[in-house]
Amino acid sequence: MPAFERPEYIDRITKVKARMEHLGIEVLLVINQSNMYYLTGYEGRSDYVPQMLILTLEDEEPKLILRKQDVPCAVHSTFLKPRNIIGYPEDYIGTERRHPHEFMAQLFKDWGIDKRRLGIERSNAPISPTGWDRLKAAMPNANFIEAAGLVAWHRLKKSPAELVYMRQAAAIADIAMQTAIDAIAPGVRECDVGAKVMAAQCMGTPDFGGDPPRPPAMPSGKKTSAPHLSWSDEVYRPNQPINIELGGFRRRYVAGLSRAIHIGEPPGRLRALHEATLEGMSTALETARSGRICEEVEAAFRATTRRHGFEKNSRIGYAIGIDWAENTASFHPGDRTVLEPDMTFHLMLGMWYDDWGYVLSETFRITDAGGETLAKLPRKLFVK
Amino acid sequence: MPAFERPEYIDRITKVKARMEHLGIEVLLVINQSNMYYLTGYEGRSDYVPQMLILTLEDEEPKLILRKQDVPCAVHSTFLKPRNIIGYPEDYIGTERRHPHEFMAQLFKDWGIDKRRLGIERSNAPISPTGWDRLKAAMPNANFIEAAGLVAWHRLKKSPAELVYMRQAAAIADIAMQTAIDAIAPGVRECDVGAKVMAAQCMGTPDFGGDPPRPPAMPSGKKTSAPHLSWSDEVYRPNQPINIELGGFRRRYVAGLSRAIHIGEPPGRLRALHEATLEGMSTALETARSGRICEEVEAAFRATTRRHGFEKNSRIGYAIGIDWAENTASFHPGDRTVLEPDMTFHLMLGMWYDDWGYVLSETFRITDAGGETLAKLPRKLFVK
Repeated sequence: MPAFERPEYIDRITKVKARMEHLGIEVLLVINQSNMYYLTGYEGRSDYVPQMLILTLEDEEPKLILRKQDVPCAVHSTFLKPRNIIGYPEDYIGTERRHPHEFMAQLFKDWGIDKRRLGIERSNAPISPTGWDRLKAAMPNANFIEAAGLVAWHRLKKSPAELVYMRQAAAIADIAMQTAIDAIAPGVRECDVGAKVMAAQCMGTPDFGGDPPRPPAMPSGKKTSAPHLSWSDEVYRPNQPINIELGGFRRRYVAGLSRAIHIGEPPGRLRALHEATLEGMSTALETARSGRICEEVEAAFRATTRRHGFEKNSRIGYAIGIDWAENTASFHPGDRTVLEPDMTFHLMLGMWYDDWGYVLSETFRITDAGGETLAKLPRKLFVK
Repeated sequence: MPAFERPEYIDRITKVKARMEHLGIEVLLVINQSNMYYLTGYEGRSDYVPQMLILTLEDEEPKLILRKQDVPCAVHSTFLKPRNIIGYPEDYIGTERRHPHEFMAQLFKDWGIDKRRLGIERSNAPISPTGWDRLKAAMPNANFIEAAGLVAWHRLKKSPAELVYMRQAAAIADIAMQTAIDAIAPGVRECDVGAKVMAAQCMGTPDFGGDPPRPPAMPSGKKTSAPHLSWSDEVYRPNQPINIELGGFRRRYVAGLSRAIHIGEPPGRLRALHEATLEGMSTALETARSGRICEEVEAAFRATTRRHGFEKNSRIGYAIGIDWAENTASFHPGDRTVLEPDMTFHLMLGMWYDDWGYVLSETFRITDAGGETLAKLPRKLFVK
């Protein structure tokens, strides 16, 4: 069953079509699987093989072209009529003699859409250079128009039904982070803490389960200088810092959450950075209200932490929703996106140095009064 | 710490260079992150941003160009000298005004390699059409040569050190599958079984922990017609089939394992397909010995199951190792790869129909006497 009712999908599609018309696009080719999920509910995590969604201005429903083996997954998970789900034969897999994009191109010719104005997501699409070159070669007269972000920007502002999932995801993130904090202790293997965290992410709450999660980042010791490392099978030792960034996952909507933990008394520099970041986060959340622009949120944070002697050199957050980052708006200098109610962001305030680092993050919703964080866990530097 | 000693990496690099010379490639650009891991140990799962490995015929070590934030991860996880790990600035992230490939192209010019014969993995590289077009635009005189599979084919035959990890991965897969079989029962939520399975994948054994796992596929009921669906938060009901495909993950090496489970007495068609597949698997494993070719393994399986009235319409297996499928050799008609000792494959014998399906799989090693399976779990149709 898809995560939403049919009218929600039709509403999304209608908005995307309006944007297509505005850009002079007659047919939209969607490759990014988070965008496919947004428009149809297709749950397959199958973009290791070529697949595509096709939306014309005339059709009410888009079509999906998938590997034949993945068609039943689409039948079970999307709101589409089965006739709009097309499989390409299995003998297109694991061979260099034919390419699924050639199968698709032939269909486009059969449907008479190959010479129309085709929007395609070029800049954020996991198709290989070969796939792209073969698609172009199979449709030499096609008129491709850049459509990167066309769907993704519509995902930024969440509907009430999406916000229900985002809040559930945040509740799961709270539980998973508390599980990590409880489990970390000297002598415990990192992978065993990882096991408890991932189990908590899956179980969710008695009222709603979690989706298959992405593993947490949880570097320890000097590896805290790296934001994206996971666990090892070493045991925790006294006087180690641990930085945890994890997500709650619910019907593919994600709430990111990060906390720093220290086994034993934290060093002064870590406490100082925590205090500076806490204050910076408050300022950023106050600034992040409807009508303000993305770069102002970053500027407010920067001014606050600079007074404490700390400077973050990377963006301080990004739009979040389906499958984590949406790759649209970011809080960094130059991003002039105007904030609107119900946009959701992951405010990610990690700072990383040569042999240590610190993280604090919250997923929040834009309101007229500022950013409303979705998780409830205290913003402490947790000491074990 | 990298998963292997320096000489193992140097040996891999030497073999890759020999192949480069054979193909007339002076500089190899590697984009696929499993190939990056194979050649350097780089553990980042960071290919949602552009990154590249550069290997020239002259240099002993390759270079990595990563997002600046990911450089410490490479310092911690690779065998490379820190000077061979280069970060591009954070202001290349989240913007359309500049692209990391432009930064890379400038470096290639500085190094004087931009006009040399550049091998690039086109057909299996997760770079976007925009990234590819920008790279070509930034190096208008570059001479790009298709190098797809150049590194990946070297991964097929495993070294003794790799086989240690493959066997550990298989031991973890055994534990995780047994955990699923034990946990499934009417009234239990699917996500709670998922939680136990993922915890088992993470914990591994007391001697070695598991890596962050990919979630199991575990469709139930009519959803068993789809191979790649995960869990829901519904409870299991009497008389339901469940198909589980999961991996054991160890230092990024994967052993895949699949079993079918039925709550209550299985229907006759399921038992019949199980018996046919069991016999087909034995024949396939006997055929899969050194000197035979891939398509013969498929033909042996096909002939056996056909006698039972069953026909599998997709490939029956593929090379497996780092990060699951290697995208090189497959067991399907037309694949003329000659089998050599210590190649590893995932023999995946799923068959899927309109409203049901069945799975049985084993990860195995080629020997002179046939395929040696790495997991120990009985090949039963498990009844709960």
